[in-house]
Amino acid sequence: MTVTAPAGFRAAGVVAGLKSTGARDVAVVVNDGPLATAAAVLTTNRVQAAPVLWTRQAVSDGAARVVVLNSGGANACTGPEGFADTHRTAELTAEWMGDLEREVGAGDVLVCSTGLIGVRLPMDHLLDGVHDAIASLSPDGGADAADAIRTTDTVSKQAVARRDGWSVGGMAKGAGMLAPGLATMLSVVTTDAVVDAATADAALRAATGTTFDRVDSDGCMSTNDTVILLASGASGVEVGLAELTSAVTEVCASLARQLVADAEGASHDIAVTVTGASSEEAAVAVARAVTRSNLFKAAVFGNDPNWGRVVAAVGTVPEDVAPYDPLALDVTVNGVQVCRAQGVGSSRDLVDLAAAREVAVEIDLHAGDASATVWTNDLTHDYVHENSAYSS
Amino acid sequence: MTVTAPAGFRAAGVVAGLKSTGARDVAVVVNDGPLATAAAVLTTNRVQAAPVLWTRQAVSDGAARVVVLNSGGANACTGPEGFADTHRTAELTAEWMGDLEREVGAGDVLVCSTGLIGVRLPMDHLLDGVHDAIASLSPDGGADAADAIRTTDTVSKQAVARRDGWSVGGMAKGAGMLAPGLATMLSVVTTDAVVDAATADAALRAATGTTFDRVDSDGCMSTNDTVILLASGASGVEVGLAELTSAVTEVCASLARQLVADAEGASHDIAVTVTGASSEEAAVAVARAVTRSNLFKAAVFGNDPNWGRVVAAVGTVPEDVAPYDPLALDVTVNGVQVCRAQGVGSSRDLVDLAAAREVAVEIDLHAGDASATVWTNDLTHDYVHENSAYSS
Repeated sequence: MTVTAPAGFRAAGVVAGLKSTGARDVAVVVNDGPLATAAAVLTTNRVQAAPVLWTRQAVSDGAARVVVLNSGGANACTGPEGFADTHRTAELTAEWMGDLEREVGAGDVLVCSTGLIGVRLPMDHLLDGVHDAIASLSPDGGADAADAIRTTDTVSKQAVARRDGWSVGGMAKGAGMLAPGLATMLSVVTTDAVVDAATADAALRAATGTTFDRVDSDGCMSTNDTVILLASGASGVEVGLAELTSAVTEVCASLARQLVADAEGASHDIAVTVTGASSEEAAVAVARAVTRSNLFKAAVFGNDPNWGRVVAAVGTVPEDVAPYDPLALDVTVNGVQVCRAQGVGSSRDLVDLAAAREVAVEIDLHAGDASATVWTNDLTHDYVHENSAYSS
Repeated sequence: MTVTAPAGFRAAGVVAGLKSTGARDVAVVVNDGPLATAAAVLTTNRVQAAPVLWTRQAVSDGAARVVVLNSGGANACTGPEGFADTHRTAELTAEWMGDLEREVGAGDVLVCSTGLIGVRLPMDHLLDGVHDAIASLSPDGGADAADAIRTTDTVSKQAVARRDGWSVGGMAKGAGMLAPGLATMLSVVTTDAVVDAATADAALRAATGTTFDRVDSDGCMSTNDTVILLASGASGVEVGLAELTSAVTEVCASLARQLVADAEGASHDIAVTVTGASSEEAAVAVARAVTRSNLFKAAVFGNDPNWGRVVAAVGTVPEDVAPYDPLALDVTVNGVQVCRAQGVGSSRDLVDLAAAREVAVEIDLHAGDASATVWTNDLTHDYVHENSAYSS
């Protein structure tokens, strides 16, 4: 069910002492090949953490053997010293891997960090953890690795897509800061398919574009977001772009849904689907406007299908982004048309229409044939509580 | 201290029974002239309430005698019937004003509504209230009118700017949905200066652009936002654009600050100032990104000057909107430089640095000489509570 499901991968997750709770906090994922194909999609935030800067450079040749991940510190806004910390982590990881089994260069080691911004990592603990993790690498280590990358996640997130003779596995973390252009989220996806770097990159971008990029928990974009795809080729099965994209998308979609369901303080999972749009981009823009409305999200927390807040959010999208006639808007919540042609829809009592955990909002723009769904969650007391007490 | 401070205005606020609480809910403001100069700035939301559609049309000739305002219902998303309700309100108001004293046409009556979206107004109650209000118009009625337009406002908002022989007065309501392109806010501003319609319009747009438009309580834009300026000319003092803009801005700035201070559930007033920007637009865009970060706003609720969340929000602004070097960012919170060149600034203990009610965040982009401030408030349990229980 995880990154070690495909052939050719080992992983480990260990306790390094970065988290005050004593939980696992360092993970290592190794691609034993024969291929070392790698691709990454990284945050579009202009403020980028040291591991993001490093990984962008290291993966640019389309190859990587190892991913090192830590929770308990983002290593963001830590200056040249923070970048040196990431560099040293990659160098020592390569050295220790080479001692054990084979030649690995620092440029074959990708690094991901997550946690508080603006604090240097305790490097002694981190490096001891990496050393321990390398020593305990196992084809069964995926679950431990998934556990080690959790921050405020209450559960670890793992997924697998099986195909004929090959498969894709993945793990992810992320419970806050989920936003477009990715989320604070780290994810490693693995496959034993035989694919080249260009195919891996194209498949990963297509998959994240319709999955992680359409999760918008709280509209906040992180400095550390990273999704990595590693291909070992160990299955011996050559796979084309369409097939690979399909399987990677399946895994990313599952992980994305797991992230939303476990978002900080969430009590409702909300799927906002826009239909009748002039383009997919227009549909996404309208859906995203609704998923970012604090008023709407607070209403759903109260089990209230407050469609006025939905149409008010829809109305904020500029006409050049999403052409539609505001007087033609329909809104359906959990199967009941609550708003028809921008007026009152159903006459039934709407109280508690949104009481279920899953809330499906459908907005018909009557302006075309395109559609898209963006996932979010409600705005709750627990969200405020967790995020007002995170660093201090 | 309010709309009746300038000469030539009367107002009233009465109980019409629109609010279940029995509080005042209908207000009327009358300009007794000699001039009937009027201007309005209306929501840019594409979903527009009936009174917004009406007022846009009625004010297009630059003249108005009366403003009718109600709380207890937004008359938005109410279809042609809702527009007919607004029209009828204006017609009967004109008729009753004419019975009492002078000829007034329906087109001289502007209408504003605020409250729940998607519900027709109880017209019997509303019209009885308007009738009563007209009967009780008084040069001392401004405070009652300001009281009558409150929704979840805990206090009424009024302001006055006195000049040599003339003045500007104003009232406003708005405690949620505060956002750019105005807020859910209604505001009536009055002056006894002698000004023409073009000057009034230009002054009002300039004033709202740097005051109400820079209030961003929760990023949500309303269907009903309206700011109206009425000029009576009763002072006999001719006033130029610069003078008028200055005085109207003073009143609007005071009202805007009062709105933020009373925003739903707020426990901190936050001023985000961006300096060193390449343009004022760039400064506003960066400041707005920070004021819309739920993570940052929740941190302030916890008295935590979490500057990592500030720089993460700054980093989401595209480079073509606000050019700057992400590695050069400085952040100061309440006078302490917490982040220097995107790294750790002060080494002092930052816990409770944001404990004061007023939190001033300054971000220096080091990219130019322009600056701007956007005001917001923190994200609190009370915000979630009020907005999860509003309609149901």
